[in-house]
Amino acid sequence: MIRTTSRLLRTQGYAGTGLNQVVAEAQAPKGSMYFHFPGGKEELAAAAIDRFAERTAARMAEALGTEPTVSEAVAGFFDDYIVHLESTGYAEGCPVATVALDAAGQSDALAEATGRALRHWTALLADALAAEGRSADGAHQLATLVIAALEGTVVMGKGQRSTEPLAAARDALRGILAVPVEA
Amino acid sequence: MIRTTSRLLRTQGYAGTGLNQVVAEAQAPKGSMYFHFPGGKEELAAAAIDRFAERTAARMAEALGTEPTVSEAVAGFFDDYIVHLESTGYAEGCPVATVALDAAGQSDALAEATGRALRHWTALLADALAAEGRSADGAHQLATLVIAALEGTVVMGKGQRSTEPLAAARDALRGILAVPVEA
Repeated sequence: MIRTTSRLLRTQGYAGTGLNQVVAEAQAPKGSMYFHFPGGKEELAAAAIDRFAERTAARMAEALGTEPTVSEAVAGFFDDYIVHLESTGYAEGCPVATVALDAAGQSDALAEATGRALRHWTALLADALAAEGRSADGAHQLATLVIAALEGTVVMGKGQRSTEPLAAARDALRGILAVPVEA
Repeated sequence: MIRTTSRLLRTQGYAGTGLNQVVAEAQAPKGSMYFHFPGGKEELAAAAIDRFAERTAARMAEALGTEPTVSEAVAGFFDDYIVHLESTGYAEGCPVATVALDAAGQSDALAEATGRALRHWTALLADALAAEGRSADGAHQLATLVIAALEGTVVMGKGQRSTEPLAAARDALRGILAVPVEA
């Protein structure tokens, strides 16, 4: 049910996702949903965001730990999203972004989940940028720019039905992140 | 009605915005809506996006024409959004972003409207960056990064209920856009 909710949030947002659709597509009995998620749709969506945030953070940490530079790891994040948007026909964006835009204003629980996800990703990337020699402030600003560029190019990718904006931002960031850091 | 639709799209997205709510909040007779927008909600939303896109483009062009550098004009775009998010209690984001994420996948008319808006803004900014001496490709990539950063930090601002991500990305871009261009 969490997996189905995540996919539906990525495709059509929080307001557009009904519990009946989740239950039908997850092929789960409705009673089990209320047993596991007594808070209903809001609780299920928060769980879906937490799961997506953790899996994404784990993939980010792995790439940052194995790629030779942060610049190359970040280029890989954009490439992964290019493949994902193409393979889903520009349907599946980021569930954190859709919920941030259409529901976080009305729900404290959802704003906490989206805020937690975005702060976690930003901090992961800032740590990696600082480890390359940047100041803490400079690393945080640059990490914020990268996370914003990822969320923003997914908006552009879905809105333009094209992966070109993801490739353009990736190439702009490659140069920016590759700038040698003064010792 | 277009103004009310635009505000509701910014706050709660396309799926969450009902025609009855638009008619009630705009204090307009329902018949007049179907007279002016026989295509209903989809046509009204496309008109709201077109209007927002044009007004935003006009404000961008004015700032790019009056600020001494693109870097300063772009910092002003972020500052304007910081004021807007604070003054609306983190409620009103960008209507193009919400519709791109929750509806453009299902509607060709809405995908055309969001695509038109994003391409227009990117081209405006790319022209200004090229006029500062950048190559056409470099200017387009950097313009895409800036538009993505604006859309992405609005996601982060609403999702974190904070304007800090907008200020951080603004400061990162100030340095990046101020890099002297080789003649």
